[in-house]
Amino acid sequence: MSVSDMPVAFDAAALARRDIFARDLGIEVVEAVPGRAVTRVRVEARHVNFNGVCHGGLTFTLADAAFGYACNSHGIMSAGIDVHMMYNAAAQVGDVLTATATEIARSARIANYRVDVVRTDGTLVAGMSGTAFITGKPTAA
Amino acid sequence: MSVSDMPVAFDAAALARRDIFARDLGIEVVEAVPGRAVTRVRVEARHVNFNGVCHGGLTFTLADAAFGYACNSHGIMSAGIDVHMMYNAAAQVGDVLTATATEIARSARIANYRVDVVRTDGTLVAGMSGTAFITGKPTAA
Amino acid sequence: MSVSDMPVAFDAAALARRDIFARDLGIEVVEAVPGRAVTRVRVEARHVNFNGVCHGGLTFTLADAAFGYACNSHGIMSAGIDVHMMYNAAAQVGDVLTATATEIARSARIANYRVDVVRTDGTLVAGMSGTAFITGKPTAA
Amino acid sequence: MSVSDMPVAFDAAALARRDIFARDLGIEVVEAVPGRAVTRVRVEARHVNFNGVCHGGLTFTLADAAFGYACNSHGIMSAGIDVHMMYNAAAQVGDVLTATATEIARSARIANYRVDVVRTDGTLVAGMSGTAFITGKPTAA
Repeated sequence: MSVSDMPVAFDAAALARRDIFARDLGIEVVEAVPGRAVTRVRVEARHVNFNGVCHGGLTFTLADAAFGYACNSHGIMSAGIDVHMMYNAAAQVGDVLTATATEIARSARIANYRVDVVRTDGTLVAGMSGTAFITGKPTAA
Repeated sequence: MSVSDMPVAFDAAALARRDIFARDLGIEVVEAVPGRAVTRVRVEARHVNFNGVCHGGLTFTLADAAFGYACNSHGIMSAGIDVHMMYNAAAQVGDVLTATATEIARSARIANYRVDVVRTDGTLVAGMSGTAFITGKPTAA
Repeated sequence: MSVSDMPVAFDAAALARRDIFARDLGIEVVEAVPGRAVTRVRVEARHVNFNGVCHGGLTFTLADAAFGYACNSHGIMSAGIDVHMMYNAAAQVGDVLTATATEIARSARIANYRVDVVRTDGTLVAGMSGTAFITGKPTAA
Repeated sequence: MSVSDMPVAFDAAALARRDIFARDLGIEVVEAVPGRAVTRVRVEARHVNFNGVCHGGLTFTLADAAFGYACNSHGIMSAGIDVHMMYNAAAQVGDVLTATATEIARSARIANYRVDVVRTDGTLVAGMSGTAFITGKPTAA
């Protein structure tokens, strides 16, 4: 029985407690099931860039977190190696952003994801694509 | 005389003071001249992900900041519309990361940049490519 | 009335006749309606790379064609400025590949697309994301 | 002695003869040494898109070929898994395009490249970034 056949206990809440950077920014993990994860953040005054709108770094980190939980969701440690992000609309202080990561392909060593970041009004704020390398080691719990 | 012909006073320090998200993360603007910008951060305990290494969101924000200062460095407001990031090596708490953004092409409305993020030992931590849309309005000072 | 308000007559077949590179590779335009386009190709012996499987350049050109018809489908000339492609599975000689491009966001000057390339068996061969610059001129008919 | 320690005989010319798609498009391999490769093509009437300029699919295939030779140049079979391309300037029939791929990072399983595509006049036509998966098997000779 290989590692990938083993029943795994993926504990997203335990990972989230150790994900200090995302947690301190106010990013929550809403859902994390095999092949899919959802994260959320409310844009605060501390999150703005020099134009007074939500910093792309926050939007990215929100999407990257969804990607990270989704690619680790099978209980096998995986690392993002490549991401592409398109910025489609600005977000303002007070907006709630939700990122949904979906696995679109998975082989022995490589998995691919798409992430949509939407505002409460349904507008797409950003679209990410990401590639993860599957290490083969269990996700540290 | 069009805006793009006007002598401009690009004040990176003024922008940096208003770039609350990047500033609060400890990101400094080291240099910002037309077509080029350099940013720097020391990785702290508050910057780690659930594997205990530097969060990709910090590396991204550092690179994105260099990109943002470089694309606004001509004094014309520009917005990142598209970024691609390759993660090449991990960074640890205590590492100092430097991001250097270089303009590789510029037309009337679109400009392109490459950003290298390196550790103090010279290792490439991440490589970014980014596209900016040039709004034609002066950078807000 | 601006150009973007004008009723347009987008003639995909006329464009396809002039799209010599794609046409000579055997790429067909199956559908092109506002915000969406579908292209198709059968992988032939002349399409292989040095490993004997479908060359990434053919898969890319197929996806890029779908992107190009989708972003010009509103009758306003648009040019791809940025694309990202993830290769998920190989395709063999004899496989029929279908690329479907979908508009995910559109502003005055910038529009974004995702393209899925699938084999007949439904396997995702590649996923593309692309950004187009909207010139504001009518698509040449 | 692991495969990566073995002296390898990387025969770019042999690969190029089997790279039917690129060869038929008129793409030549100018140079291929460990970590670097150069390809070249003259834009012909058969290479244009519906706007009468060089098709992005040709520019991509030229850059992808340089990437492919560079990532296989160590004699270990490697496959592109992810590419990002920025289009910076158009190319016309008669232009000679040269793509230079440079390895910017390499670990046990993943390697990263940047590719510049330039016209004879030195203008950057496109900039690519790509990630390759290193299979560990020798490049088929």
